[in-house]
Amino acid sequence: MKFIIINGPNLNLLGTREPEIYGNQGFEQYLSTLRNQFPSVQIDYYQSNVEGELINKLHEVGFSYTGIVLNAGAYTHTSIAIGDAIKAITTPVIEVHLSNVFARESYRHESFLTPVCKGCISGFGLKSYELALRSFF
Amino acid sequence: MKFIIINGPNLNLLGTREPEIYGNQGFEQYLSTLRNQFPSVQIDYYQSNVEGELINKLHEVGFSYTGIVLNAGAYTHTSIAIGDAIKAITTPVIEVHLSNVFARESYRHESFLTPVCKGCISGFGLKSYELALRSFF
Amino acid sequence: MKFIIINGPNLNLLGTREPEIYGNQGFEQYLSTLRNQFPSVQIDYYQSNVEGELINKLHEVGFSYTGIVLNAGAYTHTSIAIGDAIKAITTPVIEVHLSNVFARESYRHESFLTPVCKGCISGFGLKSYELALRSFF
Amino acid sequence: MKFIIINGPNLNLLGTREPEIYGNQGFEQYLSTLRNQFPSVQIDYYQSNVEGELINKLHEVGFSYTGIVLNAGAYTHTSIAIGDAIKAITTPVIEVHLSNVFARESYRHESFLTPVCKGCISGFGLKSYELALRSFF
Amino acid sequence: MKFIIINGPNLNLLGTREPEIYGNQGFEQYLSTLRNQFPSVQIDYYQSNVEGELINKLHEVGFSYTGIVLNAGAYTHTSIAIGDAIKAITTPVIEVHLSNVFARESYRHESFLTPVCKGCISGFGLKSYELALRSFF
Amino acid sequence: MKFIIINGPNLNLLGTREPEIYGNQGFEQYLSTLRNQFPSVQIDYYQSNVEGELINKLHEVGFSYTGIVLNAGAYTHTSIAIGDAIKAITTPVIEVHLSNVFARESYRHESFLTPVCKGCISGFGLKSYELALRSFF
Amino acid sequence: MKFIIINGPNLNLLGTREPEIYGNQGFEQYLSTLRNQFPSVQIDYYQSNVEGELINKLHEVGFSYTGIVLNAGAYTHTSIAIGDAIKAITTPVIEVHLSNVFARESYRHESFLTPVCKGCISGFGLKSYELALRSFF
Amino acid sequence: MKFIIINGPNLNLLGTREPEIYGNQGFEQYLSTLRNQFPSVQIDYYQSNVEGELINKLHEVGFSYTGIVLNAGAYTHTSIAIGDAIKAITTPVIEVHLSNVFARESYRHESFLTPVCKGCISGFGLKSYELALRSFF
Amino acid sequence: MKFIIINGPNLNLLGTREPEIYGNQGFEQYLSTLRNQFPSVQIDYYQSNVEGELINKLHEVGFSYTGIVLNAGAYTHTSIAIGDAIKAITTPVIEVHLSNVFARESYRHESFLTPVCKGCISGFGLKSYELALRSFF
Amino acid sequence: MKFIIINGPNLNLLGTREPEIYGNQGFEQYLSTLRNQFPSVQIDYYQSNVEGELINKLHEVGFSYTGIVLNAGAYTHTSIAIGDAIKAITTPVIEVHLSNVFARESYRHESFLTPVCKGCISGFGLKSYELALRSFF
Amino acid sequence: MKFIIINGPNLNLLGTREPEIYGNQGFEQYLSTLRNQFPSVQIDYYQSNVEGELINKLHEVGFSYTGIVLNAGAYTHTSIAIGDAIKAITTPVIEVHLSNVFARESYRHESFLTPVCKGCISGFGLKSYELALRSFF
Amino acid sequence: MKFIIINGPNLNLLGTREPEIYGNQGFEQYLSTLRNQFPSVQIDYYQSNVEGELINKLHEVGFSYTGIVLNAGAYTHTSIAIGDAIKAITTPVIEVHLSNVFARESYRHESFLTPVCKGCISGFGLKSYELALRSFF
Repeated sequence: MKFIIINGPNLNLLGTREPEIYGNQGFEQYLSTLRNQFPSVQIDYYQSNVEGELINKLHEVGFSYTGIVLNAGAYTHTSIAIGDAIKAITTPVIEVHLSNVFARESYRHESFLTPVCKGCISGFGLKSYELALRSFF
Repeated sequence: MKFIIINGPNLNLLGTREPEIYGNQGFEQYLSTLRNQFPSVQIDYYQSNVEGELINKLHEVGFSYTGIVLNAGAYTHTSIAIGDAIKAITTPVIEVHLSNVFARESYRHESFLTPVCKGCISGFGLKSYELALRSFF
Repeated sequence: MKFIIINGPNLNLLGTREPEIYGNQGFEQYLSTLRNQFPSVQIDYYQSNVEGELINKLHEVGFSYTGIVLNAGAYTHTSIAIGDAIKAITTPVIEVHLSNVFARESYRHESFLTPVCKGCISGFGLKSYELALRSFF
Repeated sequence: MKFIIINGPNLNLLGTREPEIYGNQGFEQYLSTLRNQFPSVQIDYYQSNVEGELINKLHEVGFSYTGIVLNAGAYTHTSIAIGDAIKAITTPVIEVHLSNVFARESYRHESFLTPVCKGCISGFGLKSYELALRSFF
Repeated sequence: MKFIIINGPNLNLLGTREPEIYGNQGFEQYLSTLRNQFPSVQIDYYQSNVEGELINKLHEVGFSYTGIVLNAGAYTHTSIAIGDAIKAITTPVIEVHLSNVFARESYRHESFLTPVCKGCISGFGLKSYELALRSFF
Repeated sequence: MKFIIINGPNLNLLGTREPEIYGNQGFEQYLSTLRNQFPSVQIDYYQSNVEGELINKLHEVGFSYTGIVLNAGAYTHTSIAIGDAIKAITTPVIEVHLSNVFARESYRHESFLTPVCKGCISGFGLKSYELALRSFF
Repeated sequence: MKFIIINGPNLNLLGTREPEIYGNQGFEQYLSTLRNQFPSVQIDYYQSNVEGELINKLHEVGFSYTGIVLNAGAYTHTSIAIGDAIKAITTPVIEVHLSNVFARESYRHESFLTPVCKGCISGFGLKSYELALRSFF
Repeated sequence: MKFIIINGPNLNLLGTREPEIYGNQGFEQYLSTLRNQFPSVQIDYYQSNVEGELINKLHEVGFSYTGIVLNAGAYTHTSIAIGDAIKAITTPVIEVHLSNVFARESYRHESFLTPVCKGCISGFGLKSYELALRSFF
Repeated sequence: MKFIIINGPNLNLLGTREPEIYGNQGFEQYLSTLRNQFPSVQIDYYQSNVEGELINKLHEVGFSYTGIVLNAGAYTHTSIAIGDAIKAITTPVIEVHLSNVFARESYRHESFLTPVCKGCISGFGLKSYELALRSFF
Repeated sequence: MKFIIINGPNLNLLGTREPEIYGNQGFEQYLSTLRNQFPSVQIDYYQSNVEGELINKLHEVGFSYTGIVLNAGAYTHTSIAIGDAIKAITTPVIEVHLSNVFARESYRHESFLTPVCKGCISGFGLKSYELALRSFF
Repeated sequence: MKFIIINGPNLNLLGTREPEIYGNQGFEQYLSTLRNQFPSVQIDYYQSNVEGELINKLHEVGFSYTGIVLNAGAYTHTSIAIGDAIKAITTPVIEVHLSNVFARESYRHESFLTPVCKGCISGFGLKSYELALRSFF
Repeated sequence: MKFIIINGPNLNLLGTREPEIYGNQGFEQYLSTLRNQFPSVQIDYYQSNVEGELINKLHEVGFSYTGIVLNAGAYTHTSIAIGDAIKAITTPVIEVHLSNVFARESYRHESFLTPVCKGCISGFGLKSYELALRSFF
């Protein structure tokens, strides 16, 4: 079983960016904890700030992986193209958000990804990723 | 540790209602599976079709339980009063939905509960309840 | 053949409430006239001001009755939950209104019930109920 | 007693057009059935695809007939002028629709005719016309 | 002279719920103060979290009492049915709010009750009830 | 100098239709008064309930007449095609209305004709036509 | 017979301001022409850039003059208070505009004055004032 | 203790303007009644039709008076600047309206003052001013 | 193979109407060029300014022709009825526009025809018709 | 070279009003600093809370000064008339704001002045005025 | 003569992605067919999922090529920047779409590219590209 | 002191693109002038058409530079992700625009960057950059 976590724009700054909302733990740090929790499966990781590169990665893994856990950051609310990519592939995608995005600015209330993802988990901080992986078992 | 699952309107029909969307397993059936998965904790259950009775129950349990898993059904999209009840209590509430409600009719895209819940899990069928409970551990 | 007429909020005041819009005949009075018009069928009657109790009643009769004639009053315009209940049952539901609700305040122009009912009859006063029953013959 | 049924655009194709929505019986065929059901009254019939000709006909019959049963088809949603014509005449007009128009595309949700008609009946297929006539007795 | 104060959803929690907005005095405590201020009149009290029960109570008292002071809480913004009940009765109703509801979330800016009430008083905390009663003298 | 008055839908009923808004004088009656007021000029008259026939007439007179006085009735608010016809011809067009249309239903507040007409006169009853003609002198 | 022409903001600049829209004749110059056209009546004139002073003037003349010709300029689109003043007085008010305001920026499409004025004349340049006065004869 | 009542546009006409809505008592007349009801406090009065002069007065009294009772008339719905003035001063301001403004035209439903005032009282006619003063005791 | 080009309102003026947008060649002139380009097929032509006559023509040819090239002019943006006619027939319809209609006034941005046509070609002047025909080969 | 700084409503309170947003330095104090920074040019100053007086001042200086620096305060968002005045004069106007107005309440997001000003500078506190003056050199 | 076809996001998956909408032929396969149809001209091809790289390519070819055929996929509906790039270059751009995008989800109804392209062709599957090229001859 | 100017999409074409709006001087040319004006500070420069690369650059410089001058071009109006990046870094960002973007197409009226930038300067052509730098001194 192969999974991949794909993080979108500004999530490379996790741990330094607005810690009162996102906490102060970097993602790589969290990733090793997560791999320990799921020792029998492969968990790959990819991050990019470029919308089109996220699409490239979805195309690359989207026909062979067991599942994709996607935190598309701000592109969640503006990218029809990432939504199209998710529809175009066959691997199921779980949408995750660290914070409860729908409780913040109104322009974050719309999601182009939710309708094409298998499920959505938001508001649990980094634990959102773990719950997303658990949904496959 | 005490948890309660609160189900709102029409969820008493689970298993018979629109099985192509909601599956054909009744909730009580699922509940015993769930309790087996979490043998060391108490998991109570309440269902009502009456908005005000859901508020009464939230008031009753909302100061002593560890966590509340709430599927408010259609009231998610119309009830400011349930949202106020969640804000008024101290026990954290996790919002769950069987299906991806935001991918259905547009009047189901707004939620008065998401901004006041700790987190939201939707789209995993009955497994959404299990993931909500796992978020506490 | 078994039918039920279900009346929603404030319709218990029929005959006293705003007679220039709704006439001054009480519903029970009208009901015996109606039963005389359809002597060979059973016509039950239920009224409640509580949204959830209307849902309970729809669940109770919605798998065995021939038809339901529903005047949901103001809940027509606010209750997604009653709409969900109608979708969840198998007995066909006819939506009726005494007055032409779409000619009144703009917040009465939207109906969550129309899309899930078999048909809609409005504007004929109490005669709307008779026409709804006739639609089954 | 004289009644007239006025059908608007595309209803001349009834029986061939989108039979999954409108059924496959032509209107003239249905008309003789209907006349048999009301043997003691005169039931005239008029159909036109031209908005202004429908207005002409409403003017012509609108001061002498007992009632008008109007299915204005798509003009229901775009013609303020037909609505003005109905207000300008004295014969009461019943609005009918074969299907539940308010459950289809959103641009079919607004009606310029409903506020000026005596009543509205929709969703009963061709039987909608019969129920409209019955409303006069 | 008979008055009744009717409180809607979550107002039973007054004194514990969000004290920075609503203060920390329970309503029953305040009620005795209020009765002392108006020694010569009868002041009844009713609270329910159920929309339909508030309607029932309005029907019950709405033809014999001198005045009704109504804080419908969150139902102010969603209940057309309570608005219909107020129109249907003959006792004048004064709408009150503890806080300035129109300065909070945008979904609290609309009121279905204001247009059918005799007057509206908001923003004075519990004193709003006293001012509402004074308006009758 | 040649002028033409073009009247749109339902204006043939002037004098019988909603006299509390439009007065009870027929247009032909008024026309002879008007011709007496402007004895030295030719004043033609045309009325149709058919949108396309109004366009035909605008095309026919729109390159040779001195001026056109147009009361397009309800088509004012729905016909982009009449607006296009006015732009396509060279004779200036004055828009007139008997009543103050912008003070009535909200769907009468938009005009597709105002932006392409030379001027607009509304609210003076039949005198609106006289003022429109005077604007040419 | 006494009339007054009231001009609102920026109309004191007429003749210098945006001559391609408003022409290059000052208003005082035009006023003497106008007085010559109506030799038997008194025509007063007032201009102010201050919204409240326009209200003061309307109050002052609004119970004794025969008619008011008002070009409220940009306040047409923003001033509910001037609309209220027109409703509060008894002298009829004619709204005039030099240009076709409804063909310009969208924020000029709404008028708070049109619904409370007797009539509206726009698009005829300075001749709009003459036509407004003629409407009284 | 010093209070001031500040009245906005058109309120100088109280008693003559639209008496079916506002009653036929002038404000000065009412003021002496009011002063008799509160014999121990100073009640000043100011009225202007000019938005900026209302702001000037708020600045002048807003740092030394005990309370301000403000009926800003139509400026309630259009003046962000008066709202800013209220925020800029330290004396608490109570917003009052004679009628239930939120039950009238839709453009009167928005208030720029409500969010910055201490409280709001509407619908009690002139008694609204008395209740506003009572809120300080 | 039989094709028909159907032109809607104002297109009979092509060559004289707004030549800076639509060019100065009349349609009949262009038609003979077009027939020369497709010598082996029959190309019929119909133009009407009347919405209902366009519907009549679509019904007449819509079950036997190979293809329809439709430029519905302004009716593109207002006629649900023409859209219904296209759905009701079996011959495929190609929507064409001379200019890029979506780059003009905002009320030309919506099309009731695009969703029911096989394809849409706009912005190529008269060449749009040729490209539409080529799409069939 | 002659410049003028024109300040609108409530800016006379600068230094006392909401210091957490606007700082606590009065404008006159700042003005002498500013004049020292531009010793070779004349810098006039005008402040009014009255919309119409701001228009009067713009008319007075708008044909002879080198530049106008305008902080119209709340009138920025409501005054079409000030925007018209800026279009009517020939001196270029620079719009300034102390704070980032577009980051505050949504009703402050629209500006009627930005489209007619030469440029806009916001968010730099009192330094915004200096930068505006520098733009002329 | 040099042309280039530029394809945007997810079009590299053509042939595998949602074949019920887009068909199952890959684009490279189609390209050789297309080059055979236009043997005398050079047809280059470029695809990228990155918005900015599409802009780079438009800049690179946009001053020397004869024409550009652009299918910007989902960026059609979100990218103002690509629209700016098209305006900035001198080579004419034809917008193409395989499917009738305006008949799908509502967020695909807006196009930032249509107003700046020479023409638009949609709904003909891969043949849309051929028609776009033909428009240059 | 280190500053960086970051230019977004299509600004590499400055000098060739739409010179009537943006002038015909290239940015590099202007940069040397600018560096001469601020001889004692380091002024770096970066341009990209790729949204994600602009985010990368903001991350790279956003914790060590004194200030960032950002002209995000069209991404100003569509990129929540760049706005998030600005919030995530500690160096203050000044938003600049060559032209008055808010006076152009309506889809350019919204800015996701303004609320998170320190200040905004628009409408001064290339001088906007100089003024932005001056704001730091």
